[in-house]
Amino acid sequence: MQSIESEAKIAQEYLARIAKDAEAKFDEHLPPVKDRPCRLHEAMRYSMFAGGKRLRPGLVRAAFDMFGGKGESVDYAMSALEMIHTFSLIHDDLPCIDNDDFRRGKPTSHKQFGEATAVMAGDALCVLAFELMGKTGNAKAIEVLAHLLSTYGLIGGEMIDIECEGKKVDLDTVDYIHYHKTAALIEAALQVGAMLAGADDKSIEAIRNYGRSIGLAFQIVDDILDIVSTTEELGKDAGSDIEKGKATYPSIVGLEKSRERARELYEESIKALDGLTCDTSILRSIAAYIITRVK
Amino acid sequence: MQSIESEAKIAQEYLARIAKDAEAKFDEHLPPVKDRPCRLHEAMRYSMFAGGKRLRPGLVRAAFDMFGGKGESVDYAMSALEMIHTFSLIHDDLPCIDNDDFRRGKPTSHKQFGEATAVMAGDALCVLAFELMGKTGNAKAIEVLAHLLSTYGLIGGEMIDIECEGKKVDLDTVDYIHYHKTAALIEAALQVGAMLAGADDKSIEAIRNYGRSIGLAFQIVDDILDIVSTTEELGKDAGSDIEKGKATYPSIVGLEKSRERARELYEESIKALDGLTCDTSILRSIAAYIITRVK
Repeated sequence: MQSIESEAKIAQEYLARIAKDAEAKFDEHLPPVKDRPCRLHEAMRYSMFAGGKRLRPGLVRAAFDMFGGKGESVDYAMSALEMIHTFSLIHDDLPCIDNDDFRRGKPTSHKQFGEATAVMAGDALCVLAFELMGKTGNAKAIEVLAHLLSTYGLIGGEMIDIECEGKKVDLDTVDYIHYHKTAALIEAALQVGAMLAGADDKSIEAIRNYGRSIGLAFQIVDDILDIVSTTEELGKDAGSDIEKGKATYPSIVGLEKSRERARELYEESIKALDGLTCDTSILRSIAAYIITRVK
Repeated sequence: MQSIESEAKIAQEYLARIAKDAEAKFDEHLPPVKDRPCRLHEAMRYSMFAGGKRLRPGLVRAAFDMFGGKGESVDYAMSALEMIHTFSLIHDDLPCIDNDDFRRGKPTSHKQFGEATAVMAGDALCVLAFELMGKTGNAKAIEVLAHLLSTYGLIGGEMIDIECEGKKVDLDTVDYIHYHKTAALIEAALQVGAMLAGADDKSIEAIRNYGRSIGLAFQIVDDILDIVSTTEELGKDAGSDIEKGKATYPSIVGLEKSRERARELYEESIKALDGLTCDTSILRSIAAYIITRVK
């Protein structure tokens, strides 16, 4: 059996390879800057090409391939998931929400293009994501994705997060926020990939459970890194959670217990894959990467 | 042959009847306020039930019925189109965009709930619209709708409108803004209704042409009403286009020529229906209503 570090390294290389392919597709799927409205297209591209791990496209691809998917529908879904993620970050960073000036080491959309354009760039990426999903021909996958993005998913988590800022909250509420704000879209990426590959209901259930576990682990690790890393390492303001009075795992249970919880979630995610008969090695590696990552 | 006024009256009665059914469905399709995040669900309902002509759901229904559509997919599409329209209005009204305090005689979303909630309510309505469209099972209709809402449709028109504020613009630019910002979603409503009913490509082309003509006519009449009506009659600030330096038809060609253009577009819309063999009487009435309406 491999060490968790060498497992993580495999995932990192896998994700880097997928990211390169995915970025070439983003370029194809995004409107060219020469088309009207040029500045809006520029803003969409600015945020889509500001870096990032491309974890969600990687998960779409991994699930799709694992269940033997064929054809180009996966390319549309990979772009769509990253566009939705980017849309949520752009609106999150707005002055009226988190008021963040930097993201991935670069000025946020509203700092670079102004607030009106940032609102519209977020909207436009969300809408383009659904246009691309329409091209997959799978209406059920669109319904699932939209639901996990809705007020019962990502947007719901974001809203409760905003409402709790500066308030004393319990662990249940942090769990609610993290599951919805982060895990829902990670779950969606896996489920959409599996659905496009034609996976059966039992397999989809397994991969969703895996997604929920690594999704929550991902956010707990994010909370931990916000405390233990420097701004330079993160590419965004370190310590900003504390400054904003954000509800985080370490602020409630401490760093050590947060690390334990991430480790437990890792074990749960591996267990969720148990019933699957296909090769799940890449998902196991990705889980290892998620809990060992340092940025 | 009936007078244009009596035609318009038929449409008004038809739209009022459809609006009642549609609003009952909105209530079913919108999340209940008791569900978390409660305040966001309240904000979504506030804007969806702030009144309005429900023109877009009416057009979805009219096109669906005209082409012999059966089943409940139309209900989802009717709600989806109104949600998208409402989402665009909420974001339009934001302080960083049009900065409007009133809409349909009530405080705008950000005045009532704050800016963060207004941004999220718009996002949530857009996403819910696509979730409902997913339930229709028609991925192609989703692609079409998203495209007409994208930077090549409604969002593109909105963005150019923002960029042109306070600048001297020509008629081509006003046409561009009006076609994209207003006509695109009206065209989408008709096309989605027709697609869900299984209409053939030639019929869809005809109804799209009709939609583009009444869509542009609708916006020109809006521009005219902004000048000749009082705030009380409109339920929103009359004269606000001039105040904001908005590009409008009357500001470029004058009131009389704007009325003439609306009348021409009415004729064009009727002509677009010529090739259709089904009963187009309700669409003819709606066109008459659009150019004779006083609010």
